[in-house]
Amino acid sequence: MSAPPIIILVRPQLGENIGKAARAMLNFGLIEMRLVAPRDGWPNPTAGPAASGADIVLANAQVFPTLAEATADINYVYATTVRKRGVTKPVITPEAAAQEILAHGSGRSAILFGAERSGLESDEVNVARAIITVPINPDFGSLNLAQAVILCAYEWSKTQSLASPPKTDLEPPASQFELDGLIAQLDDMLEPLGYFTPIDRAPVTRRTLRNLLTKPAWNALEVRTLRGVLTTLKRMRRTEQ
Amino acid sequence: MSAPPIIILVRPQLGENIGKAARAMLNFGLIEMRLVAPRDGWPNPTAGPAASGADIVLANAQVFPTLAEATADINYVYATTVRKRGVTKPVITPEAAAQEILAHGSGRSAILFGAERSGLESDEVNVARAIITVPINPDFGSLNLAQAVILCAYEWSKTQSLASPPKTDLEPPASQFELDGLIAQLDDMLEPLGYFTPIDRAPVTRRTLRNLLTKPAWNALEVRTLRGVLTTLKRMRRTEQ
Repeated sequence: MSAPPIIILVRPQLGENIGKAARAMLNFGLIEMRLVAPRDGWPNPTAGPAASGADIVLANAQVFPTLAEATADINYVYATTVRKRGVTKPVITPEAAAQEILAHGSGRSAILFGAERSGLESDEVNVARAIITVPINPDFGSLNLAQAVILCAYEWSKTQSLASPPKTDLEPPASQFELDGLIAQLDDMLEPLGYFTPIDRAPVTRRTLRNLLTKPAWNALEVRTLRGVLTTLKRMRRTEQ
Repeated sequence: MSAPPIIILVRPQLGENIGKAARAMLNFGLIEMRLVAPRDGWPNPTAGPAASGADIVLANAQVFPTLAEATADINYVYATTVRKRGVTKPVITPEAAAQEILAHGSGRSAILFGAERSGLESDEVNVARAIITVPINPDFGSLNLAQAVILCAYEWSKTQSLASPPKTDLEPPASQFELDGLIAQLDDMLEPLGYFTPIDRAPVTRRTLRNLLTKPAWNALEVRTLRGVLTTLKRMRRTEQ
């Protein structure tokens, strides 16, 4: 039995929309909500009335200052976007995402939703292993936050009536925290070597590297092995002089 | 190609909710709305702002004094209810209803939605050939009108071409030759650093590394990027002495 996805609202603006998202979640059995840097702080008095009774979701909502902290213990991160960004990642429907999450078996999954107006930033999308896009009227795409949440929650709930498929014995991907450790170690080695110059290109270069290293879905052991490789390479100076 | 279902709001109360329903419809390509005895008359000034641009749906909305007149030209009427009423009719999901409507071919289909608080009356439900009930959390069923509409519209859209998952422009994996070049370059760097000792473990260690680097299915550009990373790391000796 796979764990239900955690819903992560990144930089949500209005407490009312957080409440509506909680209501949308509980309608379809999702109870774990995380908030990253909610604009108006937390708790937010306008969230409760909008939740229409989904108080348990709000009461248990966890708040994190950064997306990295909110996803540190997550094995499978999905990012919802209206349109495809420059990032090259698999783009799947809410239905396909629900099937994937069901198939993951062990390991926690989370779905990221961006701020009401702006959505997720590219760097936030890059944290994810896949992008969820609701196939929508190309001439009129106007989903609000709670609607995007309810469609994903609804598709998840539909999988719960099905018999869960045979579990895969593959190790789940390393947690986002472990992956970030690998990325940081490589960054620390490359930075003094001038890899990130010219400086104005550095953000794009770092995004490219993160995408490269996120794509494999390496498990914890594989990430540790790669960190060992980097530690060995670090010895080059001493040994080769 | 079957005709899309007409959305019929029976005795809707708030213009705001009529507007939200129109927005929900147009997101998934439904444009025909009918209103039966809207409480506050029609047009309703509060509907427009809530429609967030789905003005065409509101502009074309037809108003009828009775449900009988609103459904007079409809061949297949479906009624949405939260819980099953005393009526004995088939009860199906929004997904099954969308499949049925698609299968109807010629003949118009309509989906009835009741007033915000009270829902459809029993004799209104009785007009329908089947009942649509969204499978919902038995401990927390709190769908508002627009949410019920959007789930039915979404399921319809999934039967249409616009619901086909968006294309992903993922590059094919790099050729084995390119991948081997990356693996050889890393091997050449690690070997003099004693990474492959003890020597009798070297074959296993090399197999582990190859598996790690094969798993990602990196494309050619990504492989070139990683080779650039290794070339940069190779500079450590010169730069850090």
